[in-house]
Amino acid sequence: MTKPANLENLRIVLVRTRNPLNIGAAARAMSNFGASSLRLVAPYEKAFREAVSAVGALPLLAAAQESGSVSEAVQDCSLVVGTTAIGNRELQHELCGLEDGAKRIRQKLAAAKVAVLFGSEKTGLSNRDLSHCHWLVRIPTREEHRSMNLAQAVAVVVYELSRSGGRPPGRSLTPPQEADMETLGRLNAALRESLDLSGYIHPRSAASAEEKLRRMLLRFDLNSADAEVLLGMVRRILWKLRSPG
Amino acid sequence: MTKPANLENLRIVLVRTRNPLNIGAAARAMSNFGASSLRLVAPYEKAFREAVSAVGALPLLAAAQESGSVSEAVQDCSLVVGTTAIGNRELQHELCGLEDGAKRIRQKLAAAKVAVLFGSEKTGLSNRDLSHCHWLVRIPTREEHRSMNLAQAVAVVVYELSRSGGRPPGRSLTPPQEADMETLGRLNAALRESLDLSGYIHPRSAASAEEKLRRMLLRFDLNSADAEVLLGMVRRILWKLRSPG
Repeated sequence: MTKPANLENLRIVLVRTRNPLNIGAAARAMSNFGASSLRLVAPYEKAFREAVSAVGALPLLAAAQESGSVSEAVQDCSLVVGTTAIGNRELQHELCGLEDGAKRIRQKLAAAKVAVLFGSEKTGLSNRDLSHCHWLVRIPTREEHRSMNLAQAVAVVVYELSRSGGRPPGRSLTPPQEADMETLGRLNAALRESLDLSGYIHPRSAASAEEKLRRMLLRFDLNSADAEVLLGMVRRILWKLRSPG
Repeated sequence: MTKPANLENLRIVLVRTRNPLNIGAAARAMSNFGASSLRLVAPYEKAFREAVSAVGALPLLAAAQESGSVSEAVQDCSLVVGTTAIGNRELQHELCGLEDGAKRIRQKLAAAKVAVLFGSEKTGLSNRDLSHCHWLVRIPTREEHRSMNLAQAVAVVVYELSRSGGRPPGRSLTPPQEADMETLGRLNAALRESLDLSGYIHPRSAASAEEKLRRMLLRFDLNSADAEVLLGMVRRILWKLRSPG
């Protein structure tokens, strides 16, 4: 069992956000994935702390720090990463895909504070904002429709950051016990007799029908409990076929 | 350069969604990551197609299909996956982490249609909804704050599905075609009537028997040819049960 990444050193910085509902929704997504430190640079609407979209994340929103400038908001961080929807044509910065970028950020987070910046809904991060960034990360949206909802972008980034770096945790249930061949044999016999009584199997082809049936039952890959249930069903049907009326 | 996953065969199914803004926001996220087929089961608000949150995704929203029931919405799919915020305590289904689940879904998408179901904002997917699912996927949110915003959950899932798998698929054998939900529905109905006529199912518990039967048939993971053979068998038995003597 791998431990999920520790996001204690992560600062999500929302720059000049216009819609307070996006701030609340971003806070909720952060809380879902274990990021707790939110910083707001010059939010457009001062009453963002009451955003109804911050379901379950009001404490996080209440603790959010407000700054007048990006430089103030990232002062204690050792790495500052900007997010962008733009391709790398007009950018002077190194641009990194989200998956690779998240790996680099996680490595840094182990020992230092990292800020990830999100620009305003209309204009993204300005050149001045970008001048505070070491490098940029791009969420791999389609070229034809790049621009994401702000809070969804935060959700995808913190989800990716929260991944445990190594093998996926991949917790599935203990696989159920397989049906044994004896039960399958009984099931095969009961099903075959039912099909005989129904006229499905011609006596001529009885032997090959039995083989086909057995192969099919094996393909079903029955677990032990399901095989017993199925056997009970077929036996009940068989009983009815034997004694009609 | 790895090619991004092809999501043409993916159907995102939103069940009993209450807030039309969430439908629009889900459509936007789908469009960002290249998923285009949205299906809505019994949406609470009929005017969802005008949702202002569907920035850049109005054509996708206009093409969304409305259904009255989950079974209708997933009829052409070979794999149906439910999403849940719950841990594996009270679930009867196999539960898979998102990363592993996405891999399995991508493999299936190469050859068949896959539906991913999202429940309503308040209550998630019901037990009846879940009885249509082969298995469930859980987005790895924190135990202390599991419940995500619906559209953010869609965003994270389609983001994860759109990842290039890393390793090229390199399938050697063509996997047999999976049975679709329509065939399974017919099989379920024929088997149920046979069990009714045999006195296996008490009228009192008929509804839960149907759900149990559906879940069991899904666990069998039938391929298309076997499902047809089995359907033929059950129908022959049913014919005999109806006209004894």
